[in-house]
Amino acid sequence: MTLRATGQVLGAFGACAILTVCTLYVTQSTAQRAEENRPQAESHASPIYGITIPAGYRDWRLISVAHLAGGKLKQLRAQLGNDIAIKAFREGKLPFPDGAIIAALHWNEASSDENTNAFASGFPGAGLQSSVAGSVENVQFMVKDSKKYAATGGWGFVDFKNGKPGDEAMHKTCFPCHQPFKDRDFVFTRYAPTP
Amino acid sequence: MTLRATGQVLGAFGACAILTVCTLYVTQSTAQRAEENRPQAESHASPIYGITIPAGYRDWRLISVAHLAGGKLKQLRAQLGNDIAIKAFREGKLPFPDGAIIAALHWNEASSDENTNAFASGFPGAGLQSSVAGSVENVQFMVKDSKKYAATGGWGFVDFKNGKPGDEAMHKTCFPCHQPFKDRDFVFTRYAPTP
Repeated sequence: MTLRATGQVLGAFGACAILTVCTLYVTQSTAQRAEENRPQAESHASPIYGITIPAGYRDWRLISVAHLAGGKLKQLRAQLGNDIAIKAFREGKLPFPDGAIIAALHWNEASSDENTNAFASGFPGAGLQSSVAGSVENVQFMVKDSKKYAATGGWGFVDFKNGKPGDEAMHKTCFPCHQPFKDRDFVFTRYAPTP
Repeated sequence: MTLRATGQVLGAFGACAILTVCTLYVTQSTAQRAEENRPQAESHASPIYGITIPAGYRDWRLISVAHLAGGKLKQLRAQLGNDIAIKAFREGKLPFPDGAIIAALHWNEASSDENTNAFASGFPGAGLQSSVAGSVENVQFMVKDSKKYAATGGWGFVDFKNGKPGDEAMHKTCFPCHQPFKDRDFVFTRYAPTP
């Protein structure tokens, strides 16, 4: 694995956001001037795809949850969908219609001593260990627009950390990583069953 | 740990739902008669608290996600809130107002080979392992009604598996387990930060 590839891996999982920010904003004064001359939405649009953070996405409905671990990385993750995406998931509709947006919220997994202690007290001997969503790692969106993003399966991608998108090299990794899921319209996440 | 306590532990985590169902419905014919004579909502109400599954809870907004493991138990979990609960979480309002409902959705954690393989291909060398929400384990609700449930901190509790509530013994474990969180109005879950 080359250093550049390593950087992409780290960047894609937000562990290297400082490098990303440094790449985007060479000096603070340059950054400040750039910020002042551009509307907020444009300044925070992703490279390649030009996607900004969709308003109100934290209110979207739940698709599923996931866990990702490797090396020092331990994340709890939730995928939310806007109304178009949720409707398509529930109806099993493929490909997703234009306008569908999937949000992937990634937190660093944090051991919860308070939960673990409460479970130990409530259910002695069960040895239950609890972890919860800790600090924010990043948030990613995939936006369906079959014409605009025809070259990447009809999806545009973006990875934000602290409200700032990753660089172009990072965003070049999105579609290849999603390609194994071509049969599901390039979407990793399956809709979680309703208890 | 007594056998009864063991049963409560297993029951509370849904691993022993057959026992629970057997306790509720002594014989099938008795169960059928009971079902026929009661409206559906009432027949599925929890012991002690009389709570049924709130309509549309799968559409509620996300509070946080969690992981729970111990022995053979490995769960991915999501907590959703109705509008009153979400507003209170976001405003840091304690105690929660009457009408607040928190839903805890519990799935068995399932290794996702397809995700793991996609990450291995996209980010070689990172050694990422993915797991996702698998089969449904159970769903729990806590419902705030400070008068009706005054004896249990203003909260009523229920644990459903396959649409059936657990038995009275199980439901007696709910409030004691939540008591360590008295300072947060008996709520385990903290609101996850927005990426």
